[in-house]
Amino acid sequence: MAVDTVEFSGSGERRELVGGSATFAALSCGLFSPVRLVGVVGEDFPKSTLEALRRRRTDLEGVQVVPGETFRWHGRYSEDLSSRVSLETHLNVFEHFRPKLPTSWRDSKMVLLGNIHPSLQAEVLDQVDKPLVVAADTMNFWIQGTPKELRALLTRVDLLILNEEEARELTGHRMVARVGRELRALGPRRVVIKQGEYGAYLFDEHGVFHSPAYPVDQVLDPTGAGDTFAGAMLGYLSAHGAQAPDRRTLRRAVVVGSAMASLCVERYGTEGLLEVTPDALDARVRAFGRLVHTDAEGD
Amino acid sequence: MAVDTVEFSGSGERRELVGGSATFAALSCGLFSPVRLVGVVGEDFPKSTLEALRRRRTDLEGVQVVPGETFRWHGRYSEDLSSRVSLETHLNVFEHFRPKLPTSWRDSKMVLLGNIHPSLQAEVLDQVDKPLVVAADTMNFWIQGTPKELRALLTRVDLLILNEEEARELTGHRMVARVGRELRALGPRRVVIKQGEYGAYLFDEHGVFHSPAYPVDQVLDPTGAGDTFAGAMLGYLSAHGAQAPDRRTLRRAVVVGSAMASLCVERYGTEGLLEVTPDALDARVRAFGRLVHTDAEGD
Repeated sequence: MAVDTVEFSGSGERRELVGGSATFAALSCGLFSPVRLVGVVGEDFPKSTLEALRRRRTDLEGVQVVPGETFRWHGRYSEDLSSRVSLETHLNVFEHFRPKLPTSWRDSKMVLLGNIHPSLQAEVLDQVDKPLVVAADTMNFWIQGTPKELRALLTRVDLLILNEEEARELTGHRMVARVGRELRALGPRRVVIKQGEYGAYLFDEHGVFHSPAYPVDQVLDPTGAGDTFAGAMLGYLSAHGAQAPDRRTLRRAVVVGSAMASLCVERYGTEGLLEVTPDALDARVRAFGRLVHTDAEGD
Repeated sequence: MAVDTVEFSGSGERRELVGGSATFAALSCGLFSPVRLVGVVGEDFPKSTLEALRRRRTDLEGVQVVPGETFRWHGRYSEDLSSRVSLETHLNVFEHFRPKLPTSWRDSKMVLLGNIHPSLQAEVLDQVDKPLVVAADTMNFWIQGTPKELRALLTRVDLLILNEEEARELTGHRMVARVGRELRALGPRRVVIKQGEYGAYLFDEHGVFHSPAYPVDQVLDPTGAGDTFAGAMLGYLSAHGAQAPDRRTLRRAVVVGSAMASLCVERYGTEGLLEVTPDALDARVRAFGRLVHTDAEGD
């Protein structure tokens, strides 16, 4: 959970943008299913966002509110928004964060492990008894810095969701078909490879599935798109039988994740997620159908 | 029509590879419909390739065979095959080439204008009476060097097929939805934006359609993939009612083009196109269905 300052070459600087993987994922997931959120914020984290999370069925018992400032990131996007640099990162209250789940949450059936040290991700898992689905994200920092811990974690992960560049780095291969196969061999039964504006691949027991990203007219802020995708995907699976999702449910979860991510990037920060309604999401999901189907029935 | 020398970092150098936009496009198109090929070769162009073209229903009356050497290109691909540099380009007999169609070809119903000077593309068009479909390719060289001639040509084009990078350059926009709209405003009723390994978009009177590229395990040689795509797309349209193709036909033409391109890049030069059978192509097209459909019926 974070408070960001983000510079955009077109529209200038935005300060005090609420962000953080957990915030995006929870707001997105909450549209489909109740959420138990684990994280840490300082006293500066906006109460209005905590309220918005509660309204979207998010239980905040796992969110530690501690003296000091929330994690703060200051970044700048390239003109075409395809890359960004970090100008300042203040860990603040996040520095000594150890995720601690309320004891009553040991029965959680789905777990989404955000992008932190793989040993901390493992610690979260240790606090849950028998999850049906363990999903995880990671990044190049852990792929390079803690490869052993990451590999150990992957044997406990059912659904790995990561960027194409990171997936290539983790496997040492380039072609997405090969990368997906190699990742599954590391443990996760299901692997999603996100390609940003080019969509996402799902590799699972049913084969290979591809969804494009929705061709929005304008991206305002790509921050949080991946977390929004993951949150929606997990939420959709939770609402549609996480225990044994069939081929269609898994694939639709990817489309729903892509649709939600497209609604996210059309606004700054979490604004898009706060505004989205089930009707708006449904309309976007239907638009995906029209986008990829050759036949009229695809509508 | 060309004879290429291509260096690959993995598999070394290949000499005397038959290439050229027209060669790839004709071999690809010929699988669906008869082709009338316009081009120029020297005395060194392999007779076996001319024979292969004839076998695939290509009328070579428009191919000038003149003394001297065929256009020769020598290039080197980057290790991941995502970019290439030209080391040597010898125009040879291509230098003074003026496309001349046999008078009996004035009744041609479909025209695919390869990537040459837009004024030469216009000259080809002037030699056809009432084409139903005029398709064209272009590249950054003409976008920058002959923008006026290119704009004039585009008002006579029905189906523009070009790479995303070139499409962005031509319109000055980045997001594919906007790029597609702007290109249609320049004249072409239908626009295909090719994204290489990320697939292709079709913008037409029915809306927006996206097809992924097929996730092949290994690309050996990306040369000619775009021309193969265009040839198959035109051939499919010709075989399925070019006069008034409906939504499904246009979209399936993009999928068929993508399928054929994927079979092309799995081999060197034109080898993949020479080997392909209707059954192999059908199987690949069906694999596209499985790749993008959320429902089992997609198979």
